Amino acid sequence: MRTALVIGTGLVGTSAALALAGRGIHVHLVDHDAASVRTAAALGAGTDEPPRGRVDLAIVAVPPAHTAAVLAGAMRDGVARGYLDVASVKGGPRRELEALGLDLTPYIGTHPMAGKERSGPLAATADLFEGRPWVLTPTRDTDTEVLNLALELVALCRAVPVVMDADAHDRAVALVSHTPQLISSMVAARLAEADETAVRLCGQGIRDVTRIAASDPRMWVEILSANPGPVADVLAGVAADLEETVTALRGLHSSDEEKRRAGTDAIEDVLRRGNAGRVRVPGKHGAAPAAYETVAVLIGDKPGELAAIFADAGRAGVNIEDVRIEHATGQQAGLVQLMVEPSAAPVLGTALQERGWSIRG
Amino acid sequence: MRTALVIGTGLVGTSAALALAGRGIHVHLVDHDAASVRTAAALGAGTDEPPRGRVDLAIVAVPPAHTAAVLAGAMRDGVARGYLDVASVKGGPRRELEALGLDLTPYIGTHPMAGKERSGPLAATADLFEGRPWVLTPTRDTDTEVLNLALELVALCRAVPVVMDADAHDRAVALVSHTPQLISSMVAARLAEADETAVRLCGQGIRDVTRIAASDPRMWVEILSANPGPVADVLAGVAADLEETVTALRGLHSSDEEKRRAGTDAIEDVLRRGNAGRVRVPGKHGAAPAAYETVAVLIGDKPGELAAIFADAGRAGVNIEDVRIEHATGQQAGLVQLMVEPSAAPVLGTALQERGWSIRG
Repeated sequence: MRTALVIGTGLVGTSAALALAGRGIHVHLVDHDAASVRTAAALGAGTDEPPRGRVDLAIVAVPPAHTAAVLAGAMRDGVARGYLDVASVKGGPRRELEALGLDLTPYIGTHPMAGKERSGPLAATADLFEGRPWVLTPTRDTDTEVLNLALELVALCRAVPVVMDADAHDRAVALVSHTPQLISSMVAARLAEADETAVRLCGQGIRDVTRIAASDPRMWVEILSANPGPVADVLAGVAADLEETVTALRGLHSSDEEKRRAGTDAIEDVLRRGNAGRVRVPGKHGAAPAAYETVAVLIGDKPGELAAIFADAGRAGVNIEDVRIEHATGQQAGLVQLMVEPSAAPVLGTALQERGWSIRG
Repeated sequence: MRTALVIGTGLVGTSAALALAGRGIHVHLVDHDAASVRTAAALGAGTDEPPRGRVDLAIVAVPPAHTAAVLAGAMRDGVARGYLDVASVKGGPRRELEALGLDLTPYIGTHPMAGKERSGPLAATADLFEGRPWVLTPTRDTDTEVLNLALELVALCRAVPVVMDADAHDRAVALVSHTPQLISSMVAARLAEADETAVRLCGQGIRDVTRIAASDPRMWVEILSANPGPVADVLAGVAADLEETVTALRGLHSSDEEKRRAGTDAIEDVLRRGNAGRVRVPGKHGAAPAAYETVAVLIGDKPGELAAIFADAGRAGVNIEDVRIEHATGQQAGLVQLMVEPSAAPVLGTALQERGWSIRG
């Protein structure tokens, strides 16, 4: 690939353009918002001049509702050898294109599984896709050359290609992304009307479960509107579990021991199935969930304390894999949790203790 | 308070005993498991010798199902001036004690909102309760002297006392703890049977929503069995939202524009109510959620890199409030996200850039 046209210079389009431009591809940028194109160009994502002749790959990075129309326009104009989109749903755009009677051999639907809380070209980075899955949905009709252009794009963005059927993709994101969003919102919605005293009792569990309930409702209405069927199917499965669990909990009040036993069994069953599902969730960036051990250290809340502790860890030859800091309410102190390989934990604990740090159990 | 009796030397009992013993209280330890008492005593939590005469406060820290029976035994023996339990539900134990016809003036039900993934005396720490809410459920009949003994215990453990009615407490934990657990398990349960390819697409959202689905089913069956009514009530509310959302999603397929509009509105409504609930969740240790800004730095994955970066941050006079490290798959590099006060972010970014660090957007 030597030339590319990026249509839509938002977060995803500009990030892909930055990755391509950074690896020597000549990138042309287009957007209905001229200011957005200028910003992307100023960031080094490419040029706002139109291409002279056909480019190798046209990348359509516009909202799902506009994807098919923009793709169709570009394909009719014959601006590129291959065309792909990056919309978060794949079945709908493909069916829309088919309904328009277009030749779809030069087209491949794709979806990079990367995003950010912020949108727009200013949030873009060349490394947005590094190590993330990038779904490709070729059909039997897809031109091999076009599939290879898409694979080259994924490789240049340092993402991990995953080949799927378009409808299987939509069912998968309904399961792993759209359903968790709605469920998180529903749990958080229960807190909207709760007593202030009740809300004070929130712990880390509900904090994690409701974190994504802070997402932008408009953006999510758009995403969910493009994939309603598969999301409804997954939610219906959750609803069945929920109904059974409410019945089970009510059964625990029964005077009939058989019913109480059945209630306990049903609750244990859903918790066990939850265990089984949870272990399948891959770790960050697709890596296996790492089993680190934690060494907790109490530090003063002032500049230099963290530097000193990491310097001491470095002197002990220990690599810190992850870090958490917890500040106690109203105290000028914090608990630093250093996560290290299990074999390194005793080494680190001893080394820090010898240097006068206050290690917690 | 000068003397205390801790009945039950698990995580919570031993942690409270460590806090009391560390502040000069003479603590006696009892448990049906003699090895557990010896471990707690060896950790410095108190003595395994029985008290000579009446202690000031008896702390019952046994599983919810046994709480009322153990309390009743201790109260009949008259071992203390005041009695409290730390069970995670409060209405049930109180009603059981009432049914036994005991004088409840020397009793107060309490619940420290702190825990750990690990249980048993070896997981105990004197600072387990620091900065955490500790719920007290006095009634009009509770002796003031006993309430003050309980408040003294909470202060010695450096927790934050919160006074609630026993049933209001049970409704609150159903909302902020028991419901999130079940819902997290139900979302994770959907993954148990999913295709491997679908599971590969999991991102940070579902990772957070399903984190607590890894919890111990047996422990949770016990907790939920002690509080079935309030949990069923909250779940029924979620079920109503869920049913409405499934109908809304199905409506988006309708040819009737009115129905499609109603579907979109219903989905936006649940997402907005989720926003409203989420902002009420307090930050760690009850502090207001802090609005930090992130400075992201690419580092090599080797000892000394973190030390160097924190040393440079310290030289710039910037206090790091929180840290996250993301490792890219199969790469000897990581992205360190340094969270600082908004005013400090540009200072830190410039200082690190000047010292040659690779800052990411």
